[in-house]
Amino acid sequence: MSDQQLPDTHHLVVVGAGFGGLQLVRSPKVGGLRITLIDQRNHHLFQPLLYQVATTILATSEIAWPIRRLFRERDDVTTLLGEVTGVDKEGRRVLLDDGSAIPYDTLVLATGARHSYFGRDEWEALAPGLKTLEDATTIRRRMLLAFEKAERETDPAARRALLTFAVIGAGPTGVELAGIIAELAKQILWREFRHIDTRQARILLIEAGPRVLAAFPTSLSDYAKRALEKLGVEVLLGRPVSDIRADGVTIGEEFVGCRTVVWAAGVAASPAATWLDIPADRAGRALVDPQLNAPGHPDIFVIGDTAAVPTSDGKPIPGIAPAAKQQGAYVAHVLRARLAGKPDPAPFRYRHQGNLATIGKSAAVVDFGWLQLRGWLAWWFWGIAHIFFLIGARSRVAVAWSWFWTFISGQHSARLITQGRKAGNADASPTDRKTT
Amino acid sequence: MSDQQLPDTHHLVVVGAGFGGLQLVRSPKVGGLRITLIDQRNHHLFQPLLYQVATTILATSEIAWPIRRLFRERDDVTTLLGEVTGVDKEGRRVLLDDGSAIPYDTLVLATGARHSYFGRDEWEALAPGLKTLEDATTIRRRMLLAFEKAERETDPAARRALLTFAVIGAGPTGVELAGIIAELAKQILWREFRHIDTRQARILLIEAGPRVLAAFPTSLSDYAKRALEKLGVEVLLGRPVSDIRADGVTIGEEFVGCRTVVWAAGVAASPAATWLDIPADRAGRALVDPQLNAPGHPDIFVIGDTAAVPTSDGKPIPGIAPAAKQQGAYVAHVLRARLAGKPDPAPFRYRHQGNLATIGKSAAVVDFGWLQLRGWLAWWFWGIAHIFFLIGARSRVAVAWSWFWTFISGQHSARLITQGRKAGNADASPTDRKTT
Repeated sequence: MSDQQLPDTHHLVVVGAGFGGLQLVRSPKVGGLRITLIDQRNHHLFQPLLYQVATTILATSEIAWPIRRLFRERDDVTTLLGEVTGVDKEGRRVLLDDGSAIPYDTLVLATGARHSYFGRDEWEALAPGLKTLEDATTIRRRMLLAFEKAERETDPAARRALLTFAVIGAGPTGVELAGIIAELAKQILWREFRHIDTRQARILLIEAGPRVLAAFPTSLSDYAKRALEKLGVEVLLGRPVSDIRADGVTIGEEFVGCRTVVWAAGVAASPAATWLDIPADRAGRALVDPQLNAPGHPDIFVIGDTAAVPTSDGKPIPGIAPAAKQQGAYVAHVLRARLAGKPDPAPFRYRHQGNLATIGKSAAVVDFGWLQLRGWLAWWFWGIAHIFFLIGARSRVAVAWSWFWTFISGQHSARLITQGRKAGNADASPTDRKTT
Repeated sequence: MSDQQLPDTHHLVVVGAGFGGLQLVRSPKVGGLRITLIDQRNHHLFQPLLYQVATTILATSEIAWPIRRLFRERDDVTTLLGEVTGVDKEGRRVLLDDGSAIPYDTLVLATGARHSYFGRDEWEALAPGLKTLEDATTIRRRMLLAFEKAERETDPAARRALLTFAVIGAGPTGVELAGIIAELAKQILWREFRHIDTRQARILLIEAGPRVLAAFPTSLSDYAKRALEKLGVEVLLGRPVSDIRADGVTIGEEFVGCRTVVWAAGVAASPAATWLDIPADRAGRALVDPQLNAPGHPDIFVIGDTAAVPTSDGKPIPGIAPAAKQQGAYVAHVLRARLAGKPDPAPFRYRHQGNLATIGKSAAVVDFGWLQLRGWLAWWFWGIAHIFFLIGARSRVAVAWSWFWTFISGQHSARLITQGRKAGNADASPTDRKTT
């Protein structure tokens, strides 16, 4: 392997090609530095639009890019598909699942987060979250199969449960999912079924806290709630979910029969802190120093959703793409300084640019702090911003065409049930998660 | 269910929404006829372009349409997602996997074909065929993973096997797959890897018969073979495969180490003949009479790839989309006559319109009988014809854009490894087929 062939260069190993890792590696090439980028997937995923794959608007390939294609002209970058299982801090090696190890001079862990079920791990099979393309196609399959089964179901109670959809957690992902599911049921699908009226479907958005979009100002939260209710979503606030079963959810004391449940309520960091054997916060995020270094290890950085970064005002940095990208850019800045023999730059400082969320096809909320937008103007801003942040002309045109098509035809373009090979055995059962 | 509510109408049950079944149901609405269309998938699939999903050019949703959306304005058509398990001919009922039964007045079985491994069913897990979207994403995943693993592999023999791709069967599907895999390895991927040179990959097209594209005139077969070899495909003719193992294929007596194998060599009909308990040919196709009826059952038709239709010249009807569509249109014609109280029309007569196949991005062969085309003119004819046969403006624009993008950028837009959740356990192992 050429890893050993260039002893004079500084070897940077980056684990994770999410927003943080990608921003770091895409920084301008630096002489004397070679980079190995490791991810357990072959693609970078534009997670902010993943809910549109789950709700049949976009195709998987429209929001995912092969990582190694992004760096084909960067001969200083080697891409590896592999799963990291640990870090040998003393030996300065990253350990991979196949038993091999990659030596590093500097290591950056940008391994993100997964869902957290607050200790109720058995809920995962019943209420999938939304982090990967497979999560999205799982949710898409379960949702579409519920309508198909309702069409064949003759028992009214079972049919009612099949036509009840619960989204747990009213952050941006939960709000966006509930809005599109409501549009799908109440505006698009109803003409296509003969035995059921999909407009009778119940879409529940269940939130333990007192309002939707808690990170936004109260006025925008109130607006978002009204916009959701206008689409036909039942917004249940201050109502924690106490149990999830295959046949329904228990909200507080009340059991609601329900066959499709989506989890958008909590995330937990990847095991970066465990690999490094350093302290973590309650969500498992590694407690780093103001330079984003693991304490006492200037050769190891932890960034993005898997890091807990100290801030001057004590407020946590939100788990959004711009925060991860700023940290990736900061690490590139530090490395450039070090390789040039200069002192480390000032500690990382997060600059909050704003929060965005959409509600269905024509409403959105945008909060810049100094300016707040809502309604169709916010929606256009949201759409243009997201097209802009996609990588490359191909995806921009493809996503814009899919949105344009949805807009003019009222139809979604990716209404596919896949992976459940046949109708009969593709049940939304607790075990199907294992096989996707 | 409303199935029982309209006793005065004639109930047509169509099983299978492939080219034949769809053509039949899309025929103009007939008064007094109501239709139930049953498929085990929620989508109609444009199989002629499925190889482009397998080879990363097209997204799944670009060549698949939700069946019920196609009939949303036809209140005489009910769509059911369900798996047929048998037919009760005496009771005139179709039996479904959930134990329910659908009564019919007329039944049309248009259930297509699957791969046939000539009695070596254990090969299926090692050499997937190409009939469904899942087949395509399975082949795509295995092919891309082979390159990824080769990049990490240090043993030269293992690396060589990972970079050897075998396509078995040189009909149109085998030729089209081999051509694109060769282009991917030799023209697109090589700049993205650092430890391997993907241009060294071997792509074997293995055929037991004496030439590629046996259904075409010899001159076009010879041209196709030369065009494949120009792309770097090794075309092995008159070489039957005698064994397939996880580590390679045996061609005649010669073992070739190889980790990715695709099966394009044979198909077997769906079990329609078994359900009906009527004679079948060697490939399992139901032997129907010249009206496409099951013998002695004028109320049951069998069409498309699952039927063996008698012809005046004794030549079998090819298993291609136009043949299935003609049969679907013929059954609609017969039913219209019967419902109008007229005698049955003349027996079905197949009109062969031609054969098409492409070799990579710029060559193709077209055989109309009276005219033969090859090279770029044939390629353009092929492309325009396929865009034309797609359903609806959305897919036409999306596919045209994907092709245009591939053409101008030299990049494919759907290079995703999905379903193998993580790099380490997503091996192209004999068991991964079970889990997709």
